Amino acid sequence: MDKESYFLQKLIDTGITKGIGDDAVVFSNNPISLHKGRGLCLPNDIASPVYAMDMFWEGVHFKKEWFSAREIAQKAFLINISDILAMNAIPKYALLGVCIPKDATKDFIDDFIFGIKKVCNEFCIKIIGGDTICGREFGISISMIGQIRSKPLFRVGAKIGDLIIHTGRVGGSYAELKKLLSTGARWDKKSRFYEPILRLDFIYAIARFAHLGIDISDGINAELNRLSKINKLFFKLKNPHDKIYQSGEEYEMLFCISPKDYLHTKKIANLYRVSISCIGRVVRGKNSYRTILWH
Amino acid sequence: MDKESYFLQKLIDTGITKGIGDDAVVFSNNPISLHKGRGLCLPNDIASPVYAMDMFWEGVHFKKEWFSAREIAQKAFLINISDILAMNAIPKYALLGVCIPKDATKDFIDDFIFGIKKVCNEFCIKIIGGDTICGREFGISISMIGQIRSKPLFRVGAKIGDLIIHTGRVGGSYAELKKLLSTGARWDKKSRFYEPILRLDFIYAIARFAHLGIDISDGINAELNRLSKINKLFFKLKNPHDKIYQSGEEYEMLFCISPKDYLHTKKIANLYRVSISCIGRVVRGKNSYRTILWH
Repeated sequence: MDKESYFLQKLIDTGITKGIGDDAVVFSNNPISLHKGRGLCLPNDIASPVYAMDMFWEGVHFKKEWFSAREIAQKAFLINISDILAMNAIPKYALLGVCIPKDATKDFIDDFIFGIKKVCNEFCIKIIGGDTICGREFGISISMIGQIRSKPLFRVGAKIGDLIIHTGRVGGSYAELKKLLSTGARWDKKSRFYEPILRLDFIYAIARFAHLGIDISDGINAELNRLSKINKLFFKLKNPHDKIYQSGEEYEMLFCISPKDYLHTKKIANLYRVSISCIGRVVRGKNSYRTILWH
Repeated sequence: MDKESYFLQKLIDTGITKGIGDDAVVFSNNPISLHKGRGLCLPNDIASPVYAMDMFWEGVHFKKEWFSAREIAQKAFLINISDILAMNAIPKYALLGVCIPKDATKDFIDDFIFGIKKVCNEFCIKIIGGDTICGREFGISISMIGQIRSKPLFRVGAKIGDLIIHTGRVGGSYAELKKLLSTGARWDKKSRFYEPILRLDFIYAIARFAHLGIDISDGINAELNRLSKINKLFFKLKNPHDKIYQSGEEYEMLFCISPKDYLHTKKIANLYRVSISCIGRVVRGKNSYRTILWH
């Protein structure tokens, strides 16, 4: 068992966790009034908050040569935003923890700030707190607070007979990572490895009738194994040996719908110019597909 | 200007922040019902959430030789809890980001888990999510969600004539850190450098009438400079040249009260066996005391 799994299992065994290992959790709240927080006006528009936390660290998720500081900022935020979107929630606020590398220049920091500003403005996210340290590696830890739109989209809820669908094309991140590791050369600046494509409008539209939803961060096989465990069902792939199902960091959306909603889903996909692929069905049983340790 | 300050200032300049640089922020919310989150029952008991984030990182805040894994876990949680307490709030939930060092043994992880469990059980904190990575350095990033008790205690609110008071004794952490850096030997296992002492009951009791409150994480001088800037007043020390006012990581409580509440405060302090020291007064003007960069 790898160290991360060992740590997680031991932590869950203590009984002090609630849903650790999941990407986002929901609380049900309703705003009443405004407090004045440490000299600052604070927002009162968060009903039903959702929380997600992700770390994005040099030497673990990336090498500094692979990305500009701006791309690192964007990707760190986008992987958190992806978690929030996948629950049919709107990203609202972020707590930003940053470890600035000791050798960072002003240009590097400026470029980093530019990336943060760009992505936060694009998604109307406000940074409400955080912590900044100066250390050996460049790293970002984001806790994001989102607001559920109407009905949250969980990882449970699959029904026997459901279709398993994902958005976009998968496999690209794996190819990009392999290329980077073997040659060090960048493959495609526009690859989703650098900037995940988030299917915001599409997710919000299908969330009304989808039975479950998850973003593909560790690869389709890994996510389907997770879903099988939680739903106690078999997420049966048509081509279980396809290697692209092992590719992580895709951040495409994977969801289950009733077959009767397929045409409607297809129409929504066309409307938002999102390609979708039906890759399998939910049946009785359980699955344990081959996965690779993505980091 | 150091890199952390430069980064923070640039980030604030973007206009996307709300109160970054503060330790905790408050939202006003009221729970209604329970959602089922990714197969898990989630709490509905958070009214007026407060958020705080702190990182505790090897090579920045500690060397691994200085602490056991258990002590690191405890200190990482206690510095976050301290932020929440200082606002007259109850720590409730945590998002836990951990970077496990590659050379970590099972014993090391077990000891780390023991520390997390101990401190979470002591303060009834549930871990509701997070992220775990395996990297070069040992590091912890905690986002804590607390609940305001009655009235939140902010960093603004000082009035001219207020007394400046802190709990406990300060200076010990500085002495301990100096000893560690010069000889490598541990000074005192019971030092607050290893385990900050949190004045929970005392803070809750004085929060009703205190005008502001803050925990001393970067040293009294640094905190008073911050308070001066926010309150636009002079936090005048009786002995401004005392070196102990530069000592950080004390996590004692610093607060301001009206002189008429001094006797009452003293009685509360006696009741909870907390020593308090009146170190100055709030007057017109501003202060800029000498500080040392604590990390």
